Amino acid sequence: MPIVELHLMEGYGAEEKRRLATGLANAVRSVIPAAPEAVTVMLNEVARDGYFRDGPREPAPALPDPTDTVRAFLAAMEQRDLNAAQAHLGEGFTMRFPGTAPMTELADLIAWSKPRYRFVTKSFEGFDTVSGADGSVVYCRGTLSGEWPDGSAFSGIRFIDRFELAGGKITRQDVWNDIAEVRG
Amino acid sequence: MPIVELHLMEGYGAEEKRRLATGLANAVRSVIPAAPEAVTVMLNEVARDGYFRDGPREPAPALPDPTDTVRAFLAAMEQRDLNAAQAHLGEGFTMRFPGTAPMTELADLIAWSKPRYRFVTKSFEGFDTVSGADGSVVYCRGTLSGEWPDGSAFSGIRFIDRFELAGGKITRQDVWNDIAEVRG
Amino acid sequence: MPIVELHLMEGYGAEEKRRLATGLANAVRSVIPAAPEAVTVMLNEVARDGYFRDGPREPAPALPDPTDTVRAFLAAMEQRDLNAAQAHLGEGFTMRFPGTAPMTELADLIAWSKPRYRFVTKSFEGFDTVSGADGSVVYCRGTLSGEWPDGSAFSGIRFIDRFELAGGKITRQDVWNDIAEVRG
Amino acid sequence: MPIVELHLMEGYGAEEKRRLATGLANAVRSVIPAAPEAVTVMLNEVARDGYFRDGPREPAPALPDPTDTVRAFLAAMEQRDLNAAQAHLGEGFTMRFPGTAPMTELADLIAWSKPRYRFVTKSFEGFDTVSGADGSVVYCRGTLSGEWPDGSAFSGIRFIDRFELAGGKITRQDVWNDIAEVRG
Amino acid sequence: MPIVELHLMEGYGAEEKRRLATGLANAVRSVIPAAPEAVTVMLNEVARDGYFRDGPREPAPALPDPTDTVRAFLAAMEQRDLNAAQAHLGEGFTMRFPGTAPMTELADLIAWSKPRYRFVTKSFEGFDTVSGADGSVVYCRGTLSGEWPDGSAFSGIRFIDRFELAGGKITRQDVWNDIAEVRG
Amino acid sequence: MPIVELHLMEGYGAEEKRRLATGLANAVRSVIPAAPEAVTVMLNEVARDGYFRDGPREPAPALPDPTDTVRAFLAAMEQRDLNAAQAHLGEGFTMRFPGTAPMTELADLIAWSKPRYRFVTKSFEGFDTVSGADGSVVYCRGTLSGEWPDGSAFSGIRFIDRFELAGGKITRQDVWNDIAEVRG
Repeated sequence: MPIVELHLMEGYGAEEKRRLATGLANAVRSVIPAAPEAVTVMLNEVARDGYFRDGPREPAPALPDPTDTVRAFLAAMEQRDLNAAQAHLGEGFTMRFPGTAPMTELADLIAWSKPRYRFVTKSFEGFDTVSGADGSVVYCRGTLSGEWPDGSAFSGIRFIDRFELAGGKITRQDVWNDIAEVRG
Repeated sequence: MPIVELHLMEGYGAEEKRRLATGLANAVRSVIPAAPEAVTVMLNEVARDGYFRDGPREPAPALPDPTDTVRAFLAAMEQRDLNAAQAHLGEGFTMRFPGTAPMTELADLIAWSKPRYRFVTKSFEGFDTVSGADGSVVYCRGTLSGEWPDGSAFSGIRFIDRFELAGGKITRQDVWNDIAEVRG
Repeated sequence: MPIVELHLMEGYGAEEKRRLATGLANAVRSVIPAAPEAVTVMLNEVARDGYFRDGPREPAPALPDPTDTVRAFLAAMEQRDLNAAQAHLGEGFTMRFPGTAPMTELADLIAWSKPRYRFVTKSFEGFDTVSGADGSVVYCRGTLSGEWPDGSAFSGIRFIDRFELAGGKITRQDVWNDIAEVRG
Repeated sequence: MPIVELHLMEGYGAEEKRRLATGLANAVRSVIPAAPEAVTVMLNEVARDGYFRDGPREPAPALPDPTDTVRAFLAAMEQRDLNAAQAHLGEGFTMRFPGTAPMTELADLIAWSKPRYRFVTKSFEGFDTVSGADGSVVYCRGTLSGEWPDGSAFSGIRFIDRFELAGGKITRQDVWNDIAEVRG
Repeated sequence: MPIVELHLMEGYGAEEKRRLATGLANAVRSVIPAAPEAVTVMLNEVARDGYFRDGPREPAPALPDPTDTVRAFLAAMEQRDLNAAQAHLGEGFTMRFPGTAPMTELADLIAWSKPRYRFVTKSFEGFDTVSGADGSVVYCRGTLSGEWPDGSAFSGIRFIDRFELAGGKITRQDVWNDIAEVRG
Repeated sequence: MPIVELHLMEGYGAEEKRRLATGLANAVRSVIPAAPEAVTVMLNEVARDGYFRDGPREPAPALPDPTDTVRAFLAAMEQRDLNAAQAHLGEGFTMRFPGTAPMTELADLIAWSKPRYRFVTKSFEGFDTVSGADGSVVYCRGTLSGEWPDGSAFSGIRFIDRFELAGGKITRQDVWNDIAEVRG
């Protein structure tokens, strides 16, 4: 049965509404074991001149989809386009990779990875996005392929990345993978 | 502004309502950048004799909090209580650990880990729970401590576990950690 | 999808709510071809001290189910309990039977029927109830069995009765049947 | 007081909304004795990109008004336009007329009626429409006029027809009238 | 928290909506001590073909802002434009001024005031408007300045006017001021 | 038509609900010329464990009826019970009476009035209460009776008092009356 009515100011796009509806339905279904077709979500868009809270209000621009932000950041890193990657980072950004201390600069990461592999490409198996009180968390997982420093190829190495986002920007990245297992 | 009205059948407990409200508010805030106090969630509980869909309906029992299920499973595994752990597993359960093929039996996992460490204890840094169309995903991360087979101690090794749950049962576990990095 | 929310004052019983919900769902489905399980009806009962229209209001007692009234009237007539039958009639009651002028008195009906049959019993095949702006209309149909004046039996003769009700009382009865066809 | 809020997808026409509102108000008033002006019906049309049940949905085309269908069928029959009449019939259609076995073919009805009257015209006194779980039932009643086989005229003979409709098509017709009473 | 949902027929302008929302929020805050930004007002405009009460309805034209009516009346009086002032008066209008019997004609007021002052101008400090069951009451207060009959000037004399309005017209004016105190 | 739905946390009493409903209906009727019985107010009380805004919330205690506060203050003043009267005053309280400078102490008012009248009693003709963004304003008007310093009686002298209240306390009183007119 559960029926979700979301009252929001008009002005959001169809894709943003779809993201809202999907998140709301999933939130219900994480507690109530209803079939997907038994959860109804209705968006009640209130006209701009019909919503008041201490006077009239303007709708806030929607946040970008955090998964899109993470995908764009990873694509830029894979292409070594540090400027493009940097544009997705928020204040106080830190990275944690296996076997090294936390880093804050993308250039340091590039330098650190040089003796570990010539290049690496990610094949994604899935993304998970968590909406939290302080922002979003995006997980992406899959396998790594690339070349070792000696030019030999590797592939199928499991990895998982965890990203924290606040205000649409990435503030933390944690990386785990099986490179050490495989490299021996 | 956004206001979420959830119409549901009466009969859910305060803790279940809190989980619903938190999930709904977070779903809204992942798209609309509203402050926490600007998102209102109201639960409209419909009396049992006041809700009809092709006749009267009964409310479905709430799903357990997937985080609780994962915590209980991990605690049972740490204490090597395989029966208690098994009770949390659903049909088709598989595990993926670093450096080995997928496993389906908890006993196999115990056997496989024996030459790797005498025991291991997890310190949790955080849990993330994702509500999806087909069930829930729980992530837990933190550090491992324990003893190597030679009796020497280790600690502070980063790990992350990913659990898929369906119908309140764990159907898949994926584990990543830095043991290979540290063990060398 | 369609979702019906009925806001009404608290105080109605479960059976009255069921009648309301059934009528509302059928009203929707007579226009929108939704499956029965796709139409949700929610009754929102407003507390007595929370409903105002030019001051506080009291809920009106529910009307009896018009089908029940018709069944009781017909049962009383079959048992020739004219007092009980009369109690279900409203002001200005008229009856129209095949082959005779309209009548207003139950005793006249009894007198008129005497030369037509010794007694008659109704077997019901179905009732239909129509909610209209000015009251309800109840149809009942089925077959008649009984004895002709000469004592021979008859059965299986089709009939249909139409009743108009206002304020819970029957104000008009129209009867059609195949007695003349059968009697020859 | 009672207030009916119907949440439905946008896309229905004014006439369909009027039919919905009339049916909903009548359903309420068949249980609660409120004056017509004391029952409010509000249609809340949800935008197509604001309604979700296991993803986005499309509104189903409205069913035709069952009374219109019955009127059109009866008009076609009166004009002996069997093709037009047949177009309103659904699978498994049967007819039950006074003094004969059930029929399934319109041509059989025409043949059967030939020795009974040259032609017959219906004057309508009223229609009643019932919305049920499995479709609609339409009653029409009034008087018949026409010519007997010998060319003499008749008029003022009471009749009632009952039609069952499913999916907008007529699946059953039951007819009662006083022809046998009058014909003697 | 309190959230006000006003369901009204579409057709009112932005300024009228603002007046409605302000009045509704103030009504809530006169009982519940919520901060202004904690009271949400949402106007749900129902389409003209989606609202029914004993059939379709038309929205009634909005009443003028009673404060505007009072301001216009006072401006006309100050300019001695009695025709313009009279246009704002409703049936049975009466005035009560200090030290004289009630009057019903604006011309009488002009005549009465002549020996009291040559002219008078109002400086407004504030308006208060009360919505009541039978109409509105507008208070305006401030100070008077002008000339005494002997040509000497006065200013800063406190006054307050109370106006009753019904159907957008002024039906009563009560005036208090400190002229007698000052004049001695 | 207009229908007001007020969503509020459960816990308010019947009298507080009546005040809310009256204020909301009047706010609507000050803009839309609907008859009193055409404006419906429904209070939707949300259970304490079903309302969330950045976590669970408690309902704020209702403000006292400002008219009651003013009546109690005036009664205490009439009885010269300065302690009781003082209890209704808020921070920064000031009084403005005809023919004197603003005062802040009740004792000063008593002293000032001594040479003006021995005692004075108020007969109330009406109260008006205005809900504003920053608090409430209460007007009371009527006539004064009492004794002049020489012991002679007076009566029927028009007065009006204006009170500003914030947080349930009186912060300002403005008084106008015709004493100077009458006293000559």
